[in-house]
Amino acid sequence: MVFKDTMIPSWKEQLTVRAFVVSLGLGVMFSFIVMKLTLTTGIIPSMNVAAGLLGFFFVKTWTKALEQGGWLKHPFTRQENTVIQTCVVATSGIAFSGGFGSYLFGMSDVIAEQSSDADWPNRSMNTKNPSLSWMIGFLFIVSFIGLCSVVPLRKIMIIDFKLIYPSGTATAHLINSFHTPSGAKLAKKQVSALGKFFSFSFLWSFFQWFFASDADECGFAQFPTFGLKAYNNSFFFDFSTMYVGVGMICPYLINVSLLLGAILSWGIMWPQIEKKKGIWYDADLKPTSFHGLQGYKVFTAIALILGDGLYNFVKVLGTTVIGLYAADGSTPDSGMATSFDDQRRMQLFMKDQIPTWLAVGGYLAIAAVASTTLPQIFKPLEWYYVLVIYAFAPALAFCNAYGCGLTDWSLASTYGKLAIFVIGAWAGKSHGGVMAGLAACGVMMNIVATASDLMQDFKTGYMTLASPRAMFVSQVIGTAMGCVIAPCVFWIFYSAFPDLGKVGSQYPAPFALVYRNLAILGVEGFGSLPKHCLSMCYGFFAAAILINVARDTAPKKYSRFIPIPMAIAIPFYIGSSFAIDMCVGSLILFIWEKRNKEEAKAFGPAVASGLICGEGIWSVPKAILALFQVTPPICMRFFSWRVNEKVDNFVATLSR
Amino acid sequence: MVFKDTMIPSWKEQLTVRAFVVSLGLGVMFSFIVMKLTLTTGIIPSMNVAAGLLGFFFVKTWTKALEQGGWLKHPFTRQENTVIQTCVVATSGIAFSGGFGSYLFGMSDVIAEQSSDADWPNRSMNTKNPSLSWMIGFLFIVSFIGLCSVVPLRKIMIIDFKLIYPSGTATAHLINSFHTPSGAKLAKKQVSALGKFFSFSFLWSFFQWFFASDADECGFAQFPTFGLKAYNNSFFFDFSTMYVGVGMICPYLINVSLLLGAILSWGIMWPQIEKKKGIWYDADLKPTSFHGLQGYKVFTAIALILGDGLYNFVKVLGTTVIGLYAADGSTPDSGMATSFDDQRRMQLFMKDQIPTWLAVGGYLAIAAVASTTLPQIFKPLEWYYVLVIYAFAPALAFCNAYGCGLTDWSLASTYGKLAIFVIGAWAGKSHGGVMAGLAACGVMMNIVATASDLMQDFKTGYMTLASPRAMFVSQVIGTAMGCVIAPCVFWIFYSAFPDLGKVGSQYPAPFALVYRNLAILGVEGFGSLPKHCLSMCYGFFAAAILINVARDTAPKKYSRFIPIPMAIAIPFYIGSSFAIDMCVGSLILFIWEKRNKEEAKAFGPAVASGLICGEGIWSVPKAILALFQVTPPICMRFFSWRVNEKVDNFVATLSR
Repeated sequence: MVFKDTMIPSWKEQLTVRAFVVSLGLGVMFSFIVMKLTLTTGIIPSMNVAAGLLGFFFVKTWTKALEQGGWLKHPFTRQENTVIQTCVVATSGIAFSGGFGSYLFGMSDVIAEQSSDADWPNRSMNTKNPSLSWMIGFLFIVSFIGLCSVVPLRKIMIIDFKLIYPSGTATAHLINSFHTPSGAKLAKKQVSALGKFFSFSFLWSFFQWFFASDADECGFAQFPTFGLKAYNNSFFFDFSTMYVGVGMICPYLINVSLLLGAILSWGIMWPQIEKKKGIWYDADLKPTSFHGLQGYKVFTAIALILGDGLYNFVKVLGTTVIGLYAADGSTPDSGMATSFDDQRRMQLFMKDQIPTWLAVGGYLAIAAVASTTLPQIFKPLEWYYVLVIYAFAPALAFCNAYGCGLTDWSLASTYGKLAIFVIGAWAGKSHGGVMAGLAACGVMMNIVATASDLMQDFKTGYMTLASPRAMFVSQVIGTAMGCVIAPCVFWIFYSAFPDLGKVGSQYPAPFALVYRNLAILGVEGFGSLPKHCLSMCYGFFAAAILINVARDTAPKKYSRFIPIPMAIAIPFYIGSSFAIDMCVGSLILFIWEKRNKEEAKAFGPAVASGLICGEGIWSVPKAILALFQVTPPICMRFFSWRVNEKVDNFVATLSR
Repeated sequence: MVFKDTMIPSWKEQLTVRAFVVSLGLGVMFSFIVMKLTLTTGIIPSMNVAAGLLGFFFVKTWTKALEQGGWLKHPFTRQENTVIQTCVVATSGIAFSGGFGSYLFGMSDVIAEQSSDADWPNRSMNTKNPSLSWMIGFLFIVSFIGLCSVVPLRKIMIIDFKLIYPSGTATAHLINSFHTPSGAKLAKKQVSALGKFFSFSFLWSFFQWFFASDADECGFAQFPTFGLKAYNNSFFFDFSTMYVGVGMICPYLINVSLLLGAILSWGIMWPQIEKKKGIWYDADLKPTSFHGLQGYKVFTAIALILGDGLYNFVKVLGTTVIGLYAADGSTPDSGMATSFDDQRRMQLFMKDQIPTWLAVGGYLAIAAVASTTLPQIFKPLEWYYVLVIYAFAPALAFCNAYGCGLTDWSLASTYGKLAIFVIGAWAGKSHGGVMAGLAACGVMMNIVATASDLMQDFKTGYMTLASPRAMFVSQVIGTAMGCVIAPCVFWIFYSAFPDLGKVGSQYPAPFALVYRNLAILGVEGFGSLPKHCLSMCYGFFAAAILINVARDTAPKKYSRFIPIPMAIAIPFYIGSSFAIDMCVGSLILFIWEKRNKEEAKAFGPAVASGLICGEGIWSVPKAILALFQVTPPICMRFFSWRVNEKVDNFVATLSR
């Protein structure tokens, strides 16, 4: 009953000028961080938590200063805090989904020279070098349509499905903990627990930093906890407190499904397929080539995700249509007793609705504009490709928002790769298919990434009692800021480092090359997939649907042990270590619940949020250090003892 | 009041046949382990705890089997357990103090060939190759005299000084925990805490093992926790749960003194002296040379230890003499309230006395035998050298037993080095001074090592209510077994590995070379010490005495903050990392006491014992793995990022 006596400001009061000033500052900062990461390793952690916390600190300092001067008119509320967080995430999200480290930069000559199409006759048709003007234009066209697609899904994901959205939930816990009514004693204790684990997680990440002078080979994140052989198959505990925290928030079934997927793929399938090297696929391929093992990983994962996502999409669509016909358009109430907090949340969540006609109309209008303007920016991208993408995109956005709600992983880039593949194949080699595929990837990724990112925000808003309308306005403003800030930040990097995108340089932008090569594969057709890969994809697609049917038809005492295909698929491509982290989180929570169920229930989410936030916030100073080219002083490495003997001799020659 | 209702068996009942059969088996096993360690790294952990635990397991299994058959006559008591532990420690102690990895093997031709005296004309006078017969004879002559010197010190160290003897105390806690009366609920909880931390410590050591394929460079024990620069000055936390446990048992003052010593020496003095390289001492020397920095380290430490030890020796001797004159020979009671347990312990400890005339008579008799027989084994060792050693030995034995009681570190090898130096110098270059020094080292080390080891056992016995007379008999039997077992075990290694003692081989016996070189330094005289070293030694000797005077004269509220010179000296030579481990232990206990004083007092020693025992027991499978030449699979290494870049390129060439 924390929210009983709290006054909720109206949605217009939640949108303050100070909030957007702070958002702008943080948005620029986070855009720099994300850009740096996307150009170096291509792996971007969730910034929700960091945005929430920093937003609080800045506005709190501001309001405190005003308060001491006696000029404070409106107190700082949790809703305002959520608005800032949402706006910052929307802004910095563009730095990722804008594809500066992937599809957009993959069009450039620098990348084309290093690709397998370097000697194609029509190369000029397939390249387009970055320029501030067309990038900003492109982003303005494609970025807002995601907002329109998210709005109708909101209620389904958060109220009906009660999806977790771990990062969103953690952010909400954090924001709530800052703004608790002073009387709530438990909340105070929770804040203290959160603070303690936040500090631990932050300091631990800080400590880890010193030992990771080369992130690919050094440090705790490369710790072969279960031996080198397991490590080479990506089975290791990487000491990431963030994912341990995520594991504590996710249900056991998700984490077990992830582990199952990891064992199935990295434990069984990939080693077996690797034995067929030279038979099923060319043995001389680079490990990143989609003609080899990497192809199996990505495409089987896509098949599973598509199978699960589409099953749920059809199911939900069916339920919704039936519900619409039956009565008032809401799905039948599940009859579960909801707490006072949740009732209040639901009531507020449903109050400030965004009209559906606005969302649908906006979607259609933007789609029409995009299909006429985008072909002018990217010549090979025909207008009907754009329309086809926009016809299928809502389904995929649904899949992604659903999966992200379950597991915290946004698979936007996976859907983007699918678009590359399909549109590239459709356009064909002679009609600039590579260019068409990469542009299509951009169109697709912006929708699906927005769907998951903003749904996380809506979850946060739901839990902090922020008005959905205020959230929506904040997202629109944040997106607009991102469309200008992100290309400008990229332009700074692009101007400052002439060898940007070159393999082995400081900013290799690894995924730009991957995306371009994927497009080339798409152009060359399904036939260029490695042997048996397509039939495996069919198998996994069918399996995903069958598992879902089993989950829905089996009696509940059995069905709750049937794993979730979406969760199984994720480690296929990304690796197993994060699944192990999350299972460690599950294990901790399980032991805690065995020992003291009440305590675990009250403090589990706070501890988990602390763990997630600590590492999340550390990513800011870490990125700043990296921007200033401060290399960690030490490299903690792991060798087999045979290699170590040789390294030993080598090091001895160095000191001589 | 744990011991209120327990029947204590008489001292003859404590000495059972089964105890000595188990002791023999364990003695052989531990001798193998110690021998292996002494021939590879030369660093031997305390085996008390492991001996106590394994003794319990074996006899308990035995008695359980008999019980089920209905043949059990005497139940297994904690006193019997202590007797086994004492016997095993006495046996395996000989494998260390017998000098098979140091002075004894340092006499061999293999070592002489690698020493700086390789080209001396009278080399044959200074070498003696190992042979089973003379080694056993030598050990029988020198090993028993330590027992005689320990007996009179017993009461002073344990009752009057109430010294800690961390390993002995931990072993006693362990043994007591096995034999608690079933009613004692707290004891059960303590056992559970001990068991939990025992398992943690064991599993953690086990985990560490996998990452230490080369103990000098790899693994957690080489973790540069505070950076590489601090690591090079031996400041790092080496993740040894054993020393964290020791730190929890030792008083705060000891741990702070250790840290102070570490900062003074490794933080300030050694880096400053190293800057004088080439001015104060020859820059081309090997880092292990006693003419260089190593000389400052060892001799300043010896000066401090001697100053502190001799001050306390004189002080205690004075008090004892005055007490003897005054009344009944006991030092005045300190008036402290003692618990029931302690009263009972004291009463039993004083009951089964070993007559002083026996100890003194035995000492004189053995000294006489030794001074006539030893010169026949080692030609350059004149009979009066032996008598001089035996004249000074009791004082040094006192120092060592005192220091070990405070800090758990036996400095036997330091006193041995002193004997090498003094007797070597006395005999001189032309009269086989190297040989005389090494032999003198053996004579000295056996007394002082026995003094500390057996005092640990007496502490264990005191706390487990074992009869001192039973302990004494057990020590005599254990020593006799050791005198036969240790040379035989060495002989197996010596026969099996022909390149034993050669640098770079599997069993390099590193300290054999060090001891021989120290003897050579001694023969060449004080003048060969590095510049200013002797005056520094005088300074530290005086400082030790002044600090002690201050401690004894200052009012108690100040004096309890004055550090202990003995503790300051230890890190000088050994390094700082163990001091940091122990301070971590102190810190844990300090925080625990702040939070819950009662709990910390009740469970602190159990937790500490668990930590010590876990790592202690792991040393057994670790040594067995090493004996079977099982190399840990992984090496966890630490490079500066500059070195790592080079190593990276080198490793890339390997995989090509």
